[in-house]
Amino acid sequence: MKKIINVPENYTDDMLKGIYSAHKQVKYVADDLRCYCIADKKPGKVAIVTGGGTGHLPLFLGYVGENLLDGCGVGSVFQSPSAEQIYEISKEVEAGSGILYLYGNYTGDIMNFDMAAEMLEMDDIKTRSIVGADDVLSNKLPETRRGVAGIFFMYKYAGAAAAEMGSLDEVYEAANTAKQNTRTVGFALTPCVIPELGHANFSLAENEMAFGMGIHGEPGVWNGDIKTAKELADEAVGEILDDIEIGNGDEVAVLINGLGASSIEELYILSGEVSEILSSKGIKIYKTFVGEYATSMEMAGASISICKLNSDKEKAWLDMEVKTPFIRL
Amino acid sequence: MKKIINVPENYTDDMLKGIYSAHKQVKYVADDLRCYCIADKKPGKVAIVTGGGTGHLPLFLGYVGENLLDGCGVGSVFQSPSAEQIYEISKEVEAGSGILYLYGNYTGDIMNFDMAAEMLEMDDIKTRSIVGADDVLSNKLPETRRGVAGIFFMYKYAGAAAAEMGSLDEVYEAANTAKQNTRTVGFALTPCVIPELGHANFSLAENEMAFGMGIHGEPGVWNGDIKTAKELADEAVGEILDDIEIGNGDEVAVLINGLGASSIEELYILSGEVSEILSSKGIKIYKTFVGEYATSMEMAGASISICKLNSDKEKAWLDMEVKTPFIRL
Repeated sequence: MKKIINVPENYTDDMLKGIYSAHKQVKYVADDLRCYCIADKKPGKVAIVTGGGTGHLPLFLGYVGENLLDGCGVGSVFQSPSAEQIYEISKEVEAGSGILYLYGNYTGDIMNFDMAAEMLEMDDIKTRSIVGADDVLSNKLPETRRGVAGIFFMYKYAGAAAAEMGSLDEVYEAANTAKQNTRTVGFALTPCVIPELGHANFSLAENEMAFGMGIHGEPGVWNGDIKTAKELADEAVGEILDDIEIGNGDEVAVLINGLGASSIEELYILSGEVSEILSSKGIKIYKTFVGEYATSMEMAGASISICKLNSDKEKAWLDMEVKTPFIRL
Repeated sequence: MKKIINVPENYTDDMLKGIYSAHKQVKYVADDLRCYCIADKKPGKVAIVTGGGTGHLPLFLGYVGENLLDGCGVGSVFQSPSAEQIYEISKEVEAGSGILYLYGNYTGDIMNFDMAAEMLEMDDIKTRSIVGADDVLSNKLPETRRGVAGIFFMYKYAGAAAAEMGSLDEVYEAANTAKQNTRTVGFALTPCVIPELGHANFSLAENEMAFGMGIHGEPGVWNGDIKTAKELADEAVGEILDDIEIGNGDEVAVLINGLGASSIEELYILSGEVSEILSSKGIKIYKTFVGEYATSMEMAGASISICKLNSDKEKAWLDMEVKTPFIRL
């Protein structure tokens, strides 16, 4: 295991100590490092709380900050945060207008966010919940798909709507607009290692890749020889456009996300290919984001997310400046 | 070779095409993708030009943007840009107040930047040159050290001084202030692969690392079993503090830089250890930067840079907002 760590079991807490010591814009509550909150809350604003396992930075906690999210439950590597942690965070960040729970479509997370919501109901704090489920190849049925990098657009729209002092329903609808219009396809070239295990859960041969693989190493739709960036872009964009109606004259935002080990150089090679494919179909790219937005530690690979834009409102949400210790746009 | 690429020989140009298509704030001149410039120049400002091989993103071209640099000569992977390319970029970005050449201490780069400076002299354009040479373990003699991630602080100070409309000498002195006060120590856990070669130049065993290794794989001071984050932080900070006088009551900025494959989580684990060590010595951290600032493609590993702060002026330079397609602070 080639990692810069101390005791593997302390991976998550050691990481959190490092984050709190580097960044004073965030804090923890309930004496629990894993109850991660923005340091200052804005009265009257809908609070947005996310959560999920460690191992995906900047997802999830990296999105807590100005014009994005207010709190994040931090689980161990690839594990859900507890209902109690989500509850404690929620009590801290609630600012009088209710809370939107916005996270990825994974069973453990759903169970714990739902339990926290029930606990808050007894405190007369209103919540609504929405899950990211953008991974096209994880399931044919949209509602059962896994949430991956495309949650970025949900965070962006919801964070902007909350910053504009929208109501809980309006913030929910902003997140839902992004959800309905976003699709992601990803692929991995290497596995990653869960520190507590010390070895990868599966292996890929020297020239083998896994197309459609999930960010926890969930199996993809095919394993085979590594294709070229152009072929991968073609196949991924093809899968996305088979799943959502986007065509000549439409406008989109594109997110080229690195899973961890793949170089920034490679992400731009891939981005260039995606841009050419979309242009050739008469689809206009309003904005391209390239970088690490949702990772799997040291997994090599990338994902391509496309978010269809239908209004100037959506563009304004996309353009709103955001500032967290991890994400600044 | 586990890379998302097309033809290996096109790695650099395919990357550049992707960058230009994603980001309209930058452009190329002289019909050469590798002559990378900011799209709009500011009359009367000292122009800052850097350059170096591909494979280190966001170094070097990623620092071209607001309150940082104005142009960058882009070489092939780990190769220098040509004197002609540097000359063409210089002619484009020069804005009436001369040019600072600011790049890493490598023979090919020095030769080509010096040639470009001579060509510009015949055009009556004034240049000054300064090289980053922050890698403590690369040589005992400071002037012969390699330039690595610590060049970030030189870019930051010089970019700020130029934005304040300082003279060429003042911008040079700002870069030199950062140079004199910055030291870096790094280590690698895996090699990286030059696309055109298709295989790594050396190997590290399953539990082996290289302490002091350079960002092109230059040999370090020891190879051995992977140490803990705490041990690595202790040794790296120890080497730095042996080389520059920083002690109780002093203030510093810290840069924890990922070389590529190491997860952001690991960088924060390392950052937390560095923070504890400095605190225990009474050294105050004014600001911590954590992320990928100077990489070696998919090399696993990290570097620690410490920049001693001596004045409010330096803090203001550090705090000045910067905005490039790659770096926003």
